[in-house]
Amino acid sequence: MIPPLELLDFLKKQDDFLIATHFNPDGDCLGSALSLSMALRSIGKQTTLLCKDRVPAQYKFLPGSDAFITFETIKNSESGAAAFDNLILVDCNDLDRISSEPADYKIIGFRNSIVIDHHETERPFGDIKWIEPQSAATALMIFYIIRNLGIEITGEMAVNLYAAIAVDTGNFKYENTSPEVFSISSELVRAGARPSIIYRELFESWSDSRFNLFIKVMNTLHVEDGIASIEVSQKMFEDTSTTPDDTENFVEFLRVMKNVNVSVLFRQIDEDHYKLSLRSTGDFNVAAVAKSFGGGGHKNAAGCRIRERLSTAKKMLIEKLKSAAAYQ
Amino acid sequence: MIPPLELLDFLKKQDDFLIATHFNPDGDCLGSALSLSMALRSIGKQTTLLCKDRVPAQYKFLPGSDAFITFETIKNSESGAAAFDNLILVDCNDLDRISSEPADYKIIGFRNSIVIDHHETERPFGDIKWIEPQSAATALMIFYIIRNLGIEITGEMAVNLYAAIAVDTGNFKYENTSPEVFSISSELVRAGARPSIIYRELFESWSDSRFNLFIKVMNTLHVEDGIASIEVSQKMFEDTSTTPDDTENFVEFLRVMKNVNVSVLFRQIDEDHYKLSLRSTGDFNVAAVAKSFGGGGHKNAAGCRIRERLSTAKKMLIEKLKSAAAYQ
Repeated sequence: MIPPLELLDFLKKQDDFLIATHFNPDGDCLGSALSLSMALRSIGKQTTLLCKDRVPAQYKFLPGSDAFITFETIKNSESGAAAFDNLILVDCNDLDRISSEPADYKIIGFRNSIVIDHHETERPFGDIKWIEPQSAATALMIFYIIRNLGIEITGEMAVNLYAAIAVDTGNFKYENTSPEVFSISSELVRAGARPSIIYRELFESWSDSRFNLFIKVMNTLHVEDGIASIEVSQKMFEDTSTTPDDTENFVEFLRVMKNVNVSVLFRQIDEDHYKLSLRSTGDFNVAAVAKSFGGGGHKNAAGCRIRERLSTAKKMLIEKLKSAAAYQ
Repeated sequence: MIPPLELLDFLKKQDDFLIATHFNPDGDCLGSALSLSMALRSIGKQTTLLCKDRVPAQYKFLPGSDAFITFETIKNSESGAAAFDNLILVDCNDLDRISSEPADYKIIGFRNSIVIDHHETERPFGDIKWIEPQSAATALMIFYIIRNLGIEITGEMAVNLYAAIAVDTGNFKYENTSPEVFSISSELVRAGARPSIIYRELFESWSDSRFNLFIKVMNTLHVEDGIASIEVSQKMFEDTSTTPDDTENFVEFLRVMKNVNVSVLFRQIDEDHYKLSLRSTGDFNVAAVAKSFGGGGHKNAAGCRIRERLSTAKKMLIEKLKSAAAYQ
């Protein structure tokens, strides 16, 4: 990948940047924004980092992560607004991704806008756009920007970029793990990123409560015709002092079973109201099944809601999955 | 790393090789031996692959893995013995690593011997030795041998080498994940290894029974002062139709808890007789604790046996761990 010359020239010539990323932030958007900010500062530019939501606990180890401001920070300032020469959207492609409330992004002034993203898009936003849907992570694009600007990658930049790549490739296990993912990771380790330490921060930082929830949820396992399902009730959250965030990756864990093609987590929202997370391996398209219940998603990861008793919801879903399996 | 010229010259000049690896084979020894054999065959050499034990189920996807012969194969031959010009030990450094029974390796004749290994050793065996304790996997060494022989890495060699590296680095999460691990993996993916598929074969091939055992074992979790312990009884194996092999990585899984520094699996051997697997993170030395019970191992992974009732064994171990923690 080679960043557009227009983008590199723009970054070199301009001095003041607001670097904003999407709400519900993840490792890739945070690590990418942080390392870009560090690189631009290292050549004397002024940068401000913005994210609607606070940095989640598991990403607080990212160097510089306390520099992010939120929309509240701007609202609470004297003028209640802020103006920048340039807005850079990182890992997203339009203003409605930095906040779902227009009232938020309307308090930001900017003259020029840049988009750096690896999500596919048809959105018109951005004076200069660099979009690479083939890139495993936005962090790979930021790596090339930093290198093409002739900036040396410091240890702190390397940790941010490496963590971003590790998150978006599932620590080198997803289909997007390309030769480029490995060759750049090699350079980042050389520059000071430590894989074992970053892995522990990202993937081995469960609280004891979360582990207790995990055991309770796994005890509900039901496997039938290659479909594995688990459930989490409101009571389980109460009993273990946990929240829905603590169920992250539970449904993915069921993939360890060789014979499982589809896995589902039923999360209770209310009495007779469930949120379903569906995952599949290979060609099985769970997005189509989720859509039939009014939900959506990608081929291998989708979600929907069902307003029924758990036993009914399960029956409905399994029937739909089985007929989808027969059809596919 | 650069292979010794003497070794490369020897491989070029000689024609007949027995490539043998250690008993209880793992991904690194199998993938390394297989890719070396394929490379030598591609330049017209004759090779035979030997391993005392059959290739474990999770490694049967390795291309060419059905080519391994066992000592039984040789014993059942007409002469009951076999002679080769050259013996290459891969991922081990002496004959007692290819079998613990001298009667086994005494039926093999050879004129010259080579050792290619990344385990530290003071053993005198081997006419030509290449030992690199700093190498994350023997597969990295084999990669350099193949490249320095000017042989093109085929897709099948790439899968074997990549799988070997993935196993020995815990899929790029252990401390040994060096820049070289990543740069070589990049080349192997370019040559045809597919990370997501290899990951699934290596780490996501649990039987449903094994998953049921996992849930039963996790239900025994006890966490105290950063020490997490789990147990598996003979009855659990019977109830789930599983064997001790099915407990692989159970004790490592406890690492996901942030506050856990030491984890232990108590596996019942007999009434009042337990085999303990100990794991630690960071500087905590479990080998010292295992040694005090007559066992041994490495700093972060060790084992021992205790002949006591489970409750007594647990109490003894936890006391010892706590005093070790206070001392360290």
